[in-house]
Amino acid sequence: MNPTQKPTLEICLTPDVVSFIDLTGKIAVVVDIFRATSCMVSGLANGVTHVVPVATITDALHYKSLKNENYITAGERNGEKVEGFDIGNSPFEHMAQVGKKIAMTTTNGTQAIEAVKTTAEQVIIGAFLNLKAITNYLKSQNKDIVIVCAGWKGRFNAEDSLFAGALALKLKNDFWWEGDETLFASHSYTSVKNNLAKMLKHSSHYKRLEKHGVENDMEFCLEIDKFENVPILKEHFLVNL
Amino acid sequence: MNPTQKPTLEICLTPDVVSFIDLTGKIAVVVDIFRATSCMVSGLANGVTHVVPVATITDALHYKSLKNENYITAGERNGEKVEGFDIGNSPFEHMAQVGKKIAMTTTNGTQAIEAVKTTAEQVIIGAFLNLKAITNYLKSQNKDIVIVCAGWKGRFNAEDSLFAGALALKLKNDFWWEGDETLFASHSYTSVKNNLAKMLKHSSHYKRLEKHGVENDMEFCLEIDKFENVPILKEHFLVNL
Repeated sequence: MNPTQKPTLEICLTPDVVSFIDLTGKIAVVVDIFRATSCMVSGLANGVTHVVPVATITDALHYKSLKNENYITAGERNGEKVEGFDIGNSPFEHMAQVGKKIAMTTTNGTQAIEAVKTTAEQVIIGAFLNLKAITNYLKSQNKDIVIVCAGWKGRFNAEDSLFAGALALKLKNDFWWEGDETLFASHSYTSVKNNLAKMLKHSSHYKRLEKHGVENDMEFCLEIDKFENVPILKEHFLVNL
Repeated sequence: MNPTQKPTLEICLTPDVVSFIDLTGKIAVVVDIFRATSCMVSGLANGVTHVVPVATITDALHYKSLKNENYITAGERNGEKVEGFDIGNSPFEHMAQVGKKIAMTTTNGTQAIEAVKTTAEQVIIGAFLNLKAITNYLKSQNKDIVIVCAGWKGRFNAEDSLFAGALALKLKNDFWWEGDETLFASHSYTSVKNNLAKMLKHSSHYKRLEKHGVENDMEFCLEIDKFENVPILKEHFLVNL
Protein backbone atom coordinates (compact mmCIF):
# COMPACT_ATOMS: atom_id res chain seq x y z
CA MET A 1 0.00 0.00 0.00
CA ASN A 2 2.95 2.35 0.57
CA PRO A 3 4.02 3.87 -2.75
CA THR A 4 6.80 5.96 -1.17
CA GLN A 5 10.25 5.22 0.18
CA LYS A 6 9.17 6.57 3.55
CA PRO A 7 8.61 4.32 6.54
CA THR A 8 4.97 3.73 7.53
CA LEU A 9 3.03 5.10 10.49
CA GLU A 10 -0.02 3.24 11.80
CA ILE A 11 -2.30 3.77 14.78
CA CYS A 12 -3.94 1.04 16.87
CA LEU A 13 -6.89 2.67 18.57
CA THR A 14 -7.00 -0.18 21.09
CA PRO A 15 -4.30 -2.73 21.97
CA ASP A 16 -6.53 -5.63 20.86
CA VAL A 17 -6.06 -4.48 17.26
CA VAL A 18 -2.31 -5.00 17.56
CA SER A 19 -2.89 -8.66 16.73
CA PHE A 20 -3.80 -7.59 13.16
CA ILE A 21 -0.41 -5.92 12.63
CA ASP A 22 2.99 -7.50 12.13
CA LEU A 23 5.24 -5.53 14.49
CA THR A 24 8.45 -7.20 13.33
CA GLY A 25 11.13 -4.58 12.75
CA LYS A 26 8.81 -1.78 13.88
CA ILE A 27 8.83 0.71 16.72
CA ALA A 28 5.78 0.52 18.98
CA VAL A 29 4.93 3.82 20.69
CA VAL A 30 2.75 2.97 23.67
CA VAL A 31 0.47 5.70 24.98
CA ASP A 32 -1.80 5.85 28.02
CA ILE A 33 -2.21 9.57 28.66
CA PHE A 34 -4.42 9.22 31.78
CA ARG A 35 -2.04 8.27 33.37
CA ALA A 36 0.42 5.39 32.99
CA THR A 37 2.71 6.63 30.26
CA SER A 38 2.54 10.20 31.57
CA CYS A 39 3.78 8.82 34.92
CA MET A 40 6.59 6.88 33.27
CA VAL A 41 7.80 9.91 31.35
CA SER A 42 7.50 12.21 34.38
CA GLY A 43 9.22 9.83 36.77
CA LEU A 44 12.10 8.98 34.45
CA ALA A 45 12.56 12.66 33.58
CA ASN A 46 12.93 13.47 37.26
CA GLY A 47 15.37 10.89 38.53
CA VAL A 48 13.56 7.57 38.71
CA THR A 49 16.27 5.02 37.79
CA HIS A 50 14.07 2.64 35.88
CA VAL A 51 10.51 1.38 35.63
CA VAL A 52 9.52 -2.25 35.22
CA PRO A 53 6.06 -2.42 33.66
CA VAL A 54 4.32 -5.60 34.79
CA ALA A 55 0.91 -7.04 33.99
CA THR A 56 -0.16 -8.19 37.45
CA ILE A 57 -0.16 -7.03 41.06
CA THR A 58 1.62 -10.24 42.00
CA ASP A 59 4.44 -9.48 39.58
CA ALA A 60 4.88 -6.00 41.07
CA LEU A 61 5.04 -7.45 44.60
CA HIS A 62 7.60 -9.99 43.38
CA TYR A 63 9.97 -7.15 42.38
CA LYS A 64 9.43 -5.47 45.73
CA SER A 65 10.36 -8.71 47.52
CA LEU A 66 13.74 -8.95 45.77
CA LYS A 67 16.53 -8.46 48.32
CA ASN A 68 18.98 -5.58 47.76
CA GLU A 69 17.00 -4.22 44.84
CA ASN A 70 14.92 -1.58 46.62
CA TYR A 71 11.97 -1.57 44.27
CA ILE A 72 8.86 0.33 45.13
CA THR A 73 5.44 -0.73 43.86
CA ALA A 74 3.24 1.63 41.87
CA GLY A 75 -0.05 1.38 40.08
CA GLU A 76 -3.78 1.30 40.01
CA ARG A 77 -6.76 -0.79 39.20
CA ASN A 78 -9.89 0.98 37.94
CA GLY A 79 -8.29 4.34 38.61
CA GLU A 80 -7.48 3.73 42.28
CA LYS A 81 -4.17 2.95 43.94
CA VAL A 82 -3.65 -0.76 44.55
CA GLU A 83 -4.01 -1.53 48.25
CA GLY A 84 -0.63 -2.08 49.85
CA PHE A 85 1.33 -0.47 47.00
CA ASP A 86 3.80 2.30 47.79
CA ILE A 87 2.41 4.78 45.30
CA GLY A 88 -0.47 5.01 42.84
CA ASN A 89 -0.66 6.39 39.34
CA SER A 90 -0.12 10.12 39.81
CA PRO A 91 2.75 11.78 37.93
CA PHE A 92 3.46 13.86 41.04
CA GLU A 93 4.04 10.71 43.09
CA HIS A 94 6.31 9.30 40.39
CA MET A 95 8.37 12.50 40.12
CA ALA A 96 9.11 12.28 43.86
CA GLN A 97 10.87 8.89 43.55
CA VAL A 98 14.36 10.20 42.78
CA GLY A 99 16.89 7.38 42.58
CA LYS A 100 14.22 4.69 42.95
CA LYS A 101 13.28 1.70 40.83
CA ILE A 102 9.57 1.30 40.25
CA ALA A 103 7.59 -1.87 39.53
CA MET A 104 4.38 -0.62 37.97
CA THR A 105 1.07 -2.17 36.94
CA THR A 106 -1.99 -0.36 35.64
CA THR A 107 -5.38 -1.21 34.17
CA ASN A 108 -4.45 -0.33 30.60
CA GLY A 109 -0.97 1.10 29.98
CA THR A 110 1.20 -1.71 31.26
CA GLN A 111 -1.12 -4.21 29.54
CA ALA A 112 -0.51 -2.46 26.23
CA ILE A 113 3.26 -2.77 26.74
CA GLU A 114 2.77 -6.49 27.40
CA ALA A 115 0.86 -6.79 24.14
CA VAL A 116 3.74 -5.48 22.02
CA LYS A 117 6.99 -6.17 23.84
CA THR A 118 7.76 -9.57 22.39
CA THR A 119 7.11 -8.64 18.76
CA ALA A 120 8.11 -5.00 18.23
CA GLU A 121 11.76 -4.20 17.57
CA GLN A 122 11.60 -1.27 19.97
CA VAL A 123 9.01 -0.14 22.51
CA ILE A 124 9.06 3.53 23.46
CA ILE A 125 6.77 5.48 25.77
CA GLY A 126 4.81 8.48 24.56
CA ALA A 127 2.83 11.23 26.26
CA PHE A 128 1.98 14.85 25.55
CA LEU A 129 4.71 15.60 28.10
CA ASN A 130 7.45 14.32 25.75
CA LEU A 131 5.76 14.77 22.35
CA LYS A 132 8.58 16.68 20.70
CA ALA A 133 11.28 14.41 22.10
CA ILE A 134 9.70 11.25 20.72
CA THR A 135 8.93 13.01 17.44
CA ASN A 136 12.61 13.78 17.00
CA TYR A 137 13.65 10.29 18.01
CA LEU A 138 11.23 8.63 15.61
CA LYS A 139 12.38 10.85 12.74
CA SER A 140 15.97 9.83 13.45
CA GLN A 141 15.23 6.09 13.30
CA ASN A 142 13.74 5.77 9.81
CA LYS A 143 11.72 2.71 10.86
CA ASP A 144 8.04 1.81 10.58
CA ILE A 145 6.02 2.98 13.56
CA VAL A 146 2.86 1.73 15.24
CA ILE A 147 1.25 4.03 17.82
CA VAL A 148 -0.55 1.79 20.30
CA CYS A 149 -3.32 3.45 22.30
CA ALA A 150 -3.90 1.74 25.63
CA GLY A 151 -7.58 2.67 25.70
CA TRP A 152 -9.78 1.58 28.60
CA LYS A 153 -10.19 -2.16 29.19
CA GLY A 154 -9.89 -2.99 25.51
CA ARG A 155 -12.04 -0.10 24.34
CA PHE A 156 -11.24 3.13 22.57
CA ASN A 157 -10.60 6.29 24.53
CA ALA A 158 -10.41 9.91 23.46
CA GLU A 159 -7.18 11.12 25.06
CA ASP A 160 -4.92 8.36 23.71
CA SER A 161 -6.40 8.67 20.23
CA LEU A 162 -5.98 12.44 20.24
CA PHE A 163 -2.36 12.05 21.26
CA ALA A 164 -1.91 9.57 18.39
CA GLY A 165 -3.35 12.20 16.05
CA ALA A 166 -0.97 14.84 17.42
CA LEU A 167 2.05 12.57 16.93
CA ALA A 168 0.92 11.49 13.45
CA LEU A 169 0.65 15.16 12.42
CA LYS A 170 4.16 15.88 13.72
CA LEU A 171 5.49 13.02 11.61
CA LYS A 172 3.36 13.56 8.52
CA ASN A 173 6.12 14.70 6.20
CA ASP A 174 8.50 11.90 7.10
CA PHE A 175 6.20 8.88 7.19
CA TRP A 176 3.58 7.23 5.01
CA TRP A 177 0.27 7.17 6.88
CA GLU A 178 -1.19 3.67 6.73
CA GLY A 179 -4.84 3.02 7.61
CA ASP A 180 -7.81 5.25 8.30
CA GLU A 181 -7.02 5.63 11.98
CA THR A 182 -4.39 8.22 11.06
CA LEU A 183 -6.92 10.34 9.14
CA PHE A 184 -9.49 10.11 11.88
CA ALA A 185 -7.15 10.79 14.79
CA SER A 186 -5.40 13.68 13.04
CA HIS A 187 -8.67 15.36 12.00
CA SER A 188 -9.95 15.00 15.55
CA TYR A 189 -6.79 16.44 17.05
CA THR A 190 -6.81 19.36 14.66
CA SER A 191 -10.42 20.17 15.49
CA VAL A 192 -10.00 20.09 19.29
CA LYS A 193 -6.36 20.96 19.95
CA ASN A 194 -7.13 24.49 21.10
CA ASN A 195 -9.66 23.16 23.59
CA LEU A 196 -8.06 19.86 24.48
CA ALA A 197 -8.68 19.99 28.22
CA LYS A 198 -12.22 21.25 27.75
CA MET A 199 -13.06 18.51 25.25
CA LEU A 200 -11.50 15.81 27.40
CA LYS A 201 -13.52 16.90 30.41
CA HIS A 202 -16.42 15.30 28.54
CA SER A 203 -14.52 12.04 28.08
CA SER A 204 -15.46 8.92 29.96
CA HIS A 205 -12.04 8.39 31.46
CA TYR A 206 -11.81 11.97 32.74
CA LYS A 207 -15.17 11.60 34.43
CA ARG A 208 -14.10 8.26 35.87
CA LEU A 209 -10.89 9.68 37.30
CA GLU A 210 -12.46 12.96 38.38
CA LYS A 211 -14.42 10.98 40.95
CA HIS A 212 -11.10 9.98 42.46
CA GLY A 213 -10.05 13.62 42.78
CA VAL A 214 -7.20 13.62 40.32
CA GLU A 215 -7.99 16.70 38.23
CA ASN A 216 -4.50 18.11 38.85
CA ASP A 217 -2.96 14.93 37.47
CA MET A 218 -5.04 15.18 34.34
CA GLU A 219 -4.22 18.83 33.70
CA PHE A 220 -0.54 17.98 34.12
CA CYS A 221 -0.81 15.03 31.71
CA LEU A 222 -2.06 17.39 28.99
CA GLU A 223 0.97 19.70 29.19
CA ILE A 224 2.93 19.50 25.96
CA ASP A 225 6.74 19.15 25.75
CA LYS A 226 7.37 19.58 29.45
CA PHE A 227 10.11 16.93 29.38
CA GLU A 228 12.72 15.87 26.85
CA ASN A 229 13.25 12.22 27.70
CA VAL A 230 12.38 9.20 25.56
CA PRO A 231 11.71 6.13 27.71
CA ILE A 232 12.58 2.91 25.90
CA LEU A 233 12.15 -0.72 26.93
CA LYS A 234 15.54 -2.40 27.40
CA GLU A 235 14.88 -6.05 28.19
CA HIS A 236 12.33 -5.72 31.00
CA PHE A 237 13.12 -2.16 32.04
CA LEU A 238 12.06 1.25 30.87
CA VAL A 239 14.97 3.67 30.92
CA ASN A 240 15.70 6.97 29.23
CA LEU A 241 17.48 6.80 25.90
CA MET B 1 -22.78 6.19 33.98
CA ASN B 2 -26.02 7.58 32.52
CA PRO B 3 -27.41 10.25 34.90
CA THR B 4 -30.40 11.00 32.66
CA GLN B 5 -33.67 9.27 31.89
CA LYS B 6 -32.70 9.14 28.22
CA PRO B 7 -31.72 5.90 26.51
CA THR B 8 -28.00 5.47 25.76
CA LEU B 9 -26.19 5.67 22.44
CA GLU B 10 -22.86 3.88 21.98
CA ILE B 11 -20.59 3.36 18.98
CA CYS B 12 -18.51 0.26 18.27
CA LEU B 13 -15.76 1.38 15.91
CA THR B 14 -15.16 -2.26 14.91
CA PRO B 15 -17.45 -5.28 15.33
CA ASP B 16 -14.88 -7.04 17.54
CA VAL B 17 -15.62 -4.51 20.27
CA VAL B 18 -19.25 -5.64 20.34
CA SER B 19 -18.18 -8.44 22.68
CA PHE B 20 -17.54 -5.79 25.38
CA ILE B 21 -21.16 -4.57 25.23
CA ASP B 22 -24.31 -6.24 26.48
CA LEU B 23 -26.74 -5.84 23.58
CA THR B 24 -29.71 -7.26 25.44
CA GLY B 25 -32.76 -5.07 24.92
CA LYS B 26 -30.83 -2.74 22.60
CA ILE B 27 -31.10 -1.77 18.95
CA ALA B 28 -27.98 -2.50 16.90
CA VAL B 29 -27.56 -0.21 13.90
CA VAL B 30 -25.17 -1.95 11.53
CA VAL B 31 -23.26 0.22 9.08
CA ASP B 32 -20.93 -0.66 6.21
CA ILE B 33 -21.04 2.42 3.99
CA PHE B 34 -18.70 1.06 1.27
CA ARG B 35 -20.86 -0.81 0.32
CA ALA B 36 -22.90 -3.56 2.00
CA THR B 37 -25.43 -1.59 4.00
CA SER B 38 -25.72 1.04 1.24
CA CYS B 39 -26.64 -1.83 -1.11
CA MET B 40 -29.21 -3.23 1.31
CA VAL B 41 -30.89 0.15 1.75
CA SER B 42 -30.83 0.90 -2.00
CA GLY B 43 -32.11 -2.50 -3.06
CA LEU B 44 -34.91 -2.66 -0.51
CA ALA B 45 -35.92 0.93 -1.32
CA ASN B 46 -36.27 -0.03 -4.97
CA GLY B 47 -38.29 -3.22 -4.89
CA VAL B 48 -36.01 -5.99 -3.63
CA THR B 49 -38.36 -8.23 -1.63
CA HIS B 50 -35.92 -9.19 1.07
CA VAL B 51 -32.22 -9.69 1.73
CA VAL B 52 -30.75 -12.60 3.66
CA PRO B 53 -27.36 -11.58 5.02
CA VAL B 54 -25.15 -14.65 5.34
CA ALA B 55 -21.61 -15.10 6.58
CA THR B 56 -20.26 -17.48 3.95
CA ILE B 57 -20.31 -18.03 0.19
CA THR B 58 -21.59 -21.55 0.82
CA ASP B 59 -24.56 -20.21 2.74
CA ALA B 60 -25.44 -17.84 -0.10
CA LEU B 61 -25.28 -20.68 -2.63
CA HIS B 62 -27.50 -22.77 -0.35
CA TYR B 63 -30.26 -20.16 -0.61
CA LYS B 64 -29.85 -20.05 -4.36
CA SER B 65 -30.26 -23.83 -4.52
CA LEU B 66 -33.65 -23.78 -2.76
CA LYS B 67 -36.40 -24.84 -5.18
CA ASN B 68 -39.22 -22.38 -5.88
CA GLU B 69 -37.55 -19.63 -3.90
CA ASN B 70 -35.80 -17.75 -6.71
CA TYR B 71 -32.97 -16.31 -4.68
CA ILE B 72 -30.14 -14.56 -6.41
CA THR B 73 -26.64 -14.44 -4.90
CA ALA B 74 -24.86 -11.18 -4.22
CA GLY B 75 -21.64 -10.15 -2.62
CA GLU B 76 -17.93 -9.66 -2.62
CA ARG B 77 -14.71 -10.74 -1.07
CA ASN B 78 -11.91 -8.19 -0.82
CA GLY B 79 -13.96 -5.72 -2.84
CA GLU B 80 -14.53 -7.98 -5.84
CA LYS B 81 -17.65 -9.87 -6.89
CA VAL B 82 -17.62 -13.50 -5.80
CA GLU B 83 -17.03 -15.74 -8.80
CA GLY B 84 -20.25 -17.42 -9.88
CA PHE B 85 -22.50 -15.02 -7.97
CA ASP B 86 -25.31 -13.26 -9.80
CA ILE B 87 -24.36 -9.77 -8.71
CA GLY B 88 -21.63 -8.08 -6.70
CA ASN B 89 -21.76 -5.30 -4.16
CA SER B 90 -22.80 -2.27 -6.19
CA PRO B 91 -25.93 -0.37 -5.14
CA PHE B 92 -26.82 0.01 -8.82
CA GLU B 93 -26.89 -3.77 -9.26
CA HIS B 94 -29.03 -4.15 -6.14
CA MET B 95 -31.52 -1.49 -7.25
CA ALA B 96 -32.10 -3.42 -10.47
CA GLN B 97 -33.36 -6.55 -8.67
CA VAL B 98 -37.04 -5.54 -8.43
CA GLY B 99 -39.16 -8.33 -6.94
CA LYS B 100 -36.14 -10.50 -6.18
CA LYS B 101 -34.85 -12.09 -2.99
CA ILE B 102 -31.15 -11.66 -2.42
CA ALA B 103 -28.76 -13.89 -0.44
CA MET B 104 -25.81 -11.65 0.32
CA THR B 105 -22.35 -12.10 1.81
CA THR B 106 -19.62 -9.48 2.09
CA THR B 107 -16.19 -9.10 3.67
CA ASN B 108 -17.36 -6.91 6.52
CA GLY B 109 -21.01 -5.85 6.55
CA THR B 110 -22.73 -9.20 6.71
CA GLN B 111 -20.14 -10.37 9.27
CA ALA B 112 -21.10 -7.43 11.49
CA ILE B 113 -24.76 -8.47 11.29
CA GLU B 114 -23.74 -11.99 12.31
CA ALA B 115 -21.92 -10.55 15.32
CA VAL B 116 -25.02 -8.86 16.75
CA LYS B 117 -28.07 -10.74 15.52
CA THR B 118 -28.41 -13.23 18.34
CA THR B 119 -28.01 -10.72 21.16
CA ALA B 120 -29.52 -7.40 20.07
CA GLU B 121 -33.26 -6.92 20.44
CA GLN B 122 -33.45 -5.35 16.98
CA VAL B 123 -30.97 -5.10 14.13
CA ILE B 124 -31.49 -2.25 11.68
CA ILE B 125 -29.44 -1.21 8.67
CA GLY B 126 -27.96 2.26 8.37
CA ALA B 127 -26.34 4.23 5.58
CA PHE B 128 -26.02 7.87 4.60
CA LEU B 129 -28.75 7.03 2.07
CA ASN B 130 -31.34 6.54 4.84
CA LEU B 131 -29.86 8.66 7.63
CA LYS B 132 -32.99 10.70 8.36
CA ALA B 133 -35.29 7.67 8.18
CA ILE B 134 -33.31 5.70 10.76
CA THR B 135 -32.92 8.81 12.92
CA ASN B 136 -36.69 9.18 13.09
CA TYR B 137 -37.18 5.48 13.75
CA LEU B 138 -34.62 5.41 16.56
CA LYS B 139 -36.18 8.47 18.19
CA SER B 140 -39.55 6.74 18.12
CA GLN B 141 -38.31 3.61 19.87
CA ASN B 142 -36.90 5.04 23.10
CA LYS B 143 -34.44 2.15 23.43
CA ASP B 144 -30.68 2.00 23.97
CA ILE B 145 -28.74 2.01 20.70
CA VAL B 146 -25.38 0.62 19.65
CA ILE B 147 -24.04 1.76 16.27
CA VAL B 148 -21.86 -1.06 14.96
CA CYS B 149 -19.27 -0.07 12.34
CA ALA B 150 -18.36 -2.97 10.09
CA GLY B 151 -14.84 -1.64 9.49
CA TRP B 152 -12.41 -3.57 7.31
CA LYS B 153 -11.46 -7.09 8.40
CA GLY B 154 -11.77 -6.26 12.07
CA ARG B 155 -10.09 -2.87 11.79
CA PHE B 156 -11.39 0.65 12.00
CA ASN B 157 -12.40 2.50 8.86
CA ALA B 158 -13.14 6.16 8.23
CA GLU B 159 -16.46 6.07 6.38
CA ASP B 160 -18.35 3.90 8.87
CA SER B 161 -17.04 5.90 11.82
CA LEU B 162 -18.00 9.19 10.17
CA PHE B 163 -21.48 7.87 9.53
CA ALA B 164 -21.68 6.88 13.21
CA GLY B 165 -20.70 10.44 14.11
CA ALA B 166 -23.38 11.85 11.81
CA LEU B 167 -26.06 9.62 13.33
CA ALA B 168 -24.91 10.35 16.90
CA LEU B 169 -25.20 14.09 16.21
CA LYS B 170 -28.72 13.67 14.84
CA LEU B 171 -29.70 11.86 18.04
CA LYS B 172 -27.78 14.00 20.50
CA ASN B 173 -30.75 15.64 22.18
CA ASP B 174 -32.67 12.41 22.67
CA PHE B 175 -29.97 10.02 23.84
CA TRP B 176 -27.20 9.88 26.44
CA TRP B 177 -23.87 9.47 24.67
CA GLU B 178 -21.94 6.64 26.30
CA GLY B 179 -18.21 6.19 25.68
CA ASP B 180 -15.57 8.31 23.99
CA GLU B 181 -16.27 6.92 20.52
CA THR B 182 -19.27 9.24 20.31
CA LEU B 183 -17.15 12.33 21.02
CA PHE B 184 -14.47 11.29 18.58
CA ALA B 185 -16.79 10.29 15.74
CA SER B 186 -18.98 13.36 16.10
CA HIS B 187 -16.01 15.77 16.19
CA SER B 188 -14.59 14.08 13.12
CA TYR B 189 -17.85 14.24 11.24
CA THR B 190 -18.33 17.90 12.12
CA SER B 191 -14.85 18.75 10.91
CA VAL B 192 -15.12 16.97 7.54
CA LYS B 193 -18.82 16.94 6.69
CA ASN B 194 -18.51 19.68 4.08
CA ASN B 195 -15.75 17.76 2.35
CA LEU B 196 -16.83 14.21 3.04
CA ALA B 197 -16.11 12.77 -0.40
CA LYS B 198 -12.81 14.60 -0.65
CA MET B 199 -11.67 13.40 2.77
CA LEU B 200 -12.75 9.82 2.07
CA LYS B 201 -10.79 9.76 -1.17
CA HIS B 202 -7.77 9.57 1.12
CA SER B 203 -9.22 6.62 3.03
CA SER B 204 -7.79 3.16 2.67
CA HIS B 205 -11.06 1.55 1.66
CA TYR B 206 -11.74 4.12 -1.04
CA LYS B 207 -8.30 3.53 -2.51
CA ARG B 208 -8.82 -0.22 -2.30
CA LEU B 209 -12.16 -0.04 -4.12
CA GLU B 210 -11.02 2.62 -6.58
CA LYS B 211 -8.72 0.01 -8.06
CA HIS B 212 -11.83 -2.00 -8.89
CA GLY B 213 -13.36 0.96 -10.74
CA VAL B 214 -16.26 1.61 -8.42
CA GLU B 215 -15.99 5.38 -7.91
CA ASN B 216 -19.63 5.85 -8.98
CA ASP B 217 -20.75 3.43 -6.30
CA MET B 218 -18.84 5.31 -3.67
CA GLU B 219 -20.18 8.71 -4.66
CA PHE B 220 -23.69 7.25 -4.56
CA CYS B 221 -23.09 5.73 -1.11
CA LEU B 222 -22.29 9.20 0.27
CA GLU B 223 -25.58 10.73 -0.82
CA ILE B 224 -27.61 11.70 2.23
CA ASP B 225 -31.33 10.93 2.69
CA LYS B 226 -31.90 9.61 -0.80
CA PHE B 227 -34.23 6.90 0.52
CA GLU B 228 -36.74 6.69 3.33
CA ASN B 229 -36.73 3.01 4.19
CA VAL B 230 -35.51 1.39 7.40
CA PRO B 231 -34.35 -2.19 6.79
CA ILE B 232 -34.82 -4.38 9.86
CA LEU B 233 -33.85 -7.99 10.51
CA LYS B 234 -36.95 -10.18 10.93
CA GLU B 235 -35.76 -13.67 11.79
CA HIS B 236 -33.18 -14.23 9.04
CA PHE B 237 -34.42 -11.64 6.57
CA LEU B 238 -33.90 -7.95 6.12
CA VAL B 239 -37.12 -6.25 5.09
CA ASN B 240 -38.35 -2.67 5.19
CA LEU B 241 -40.20 -1.63 8.31
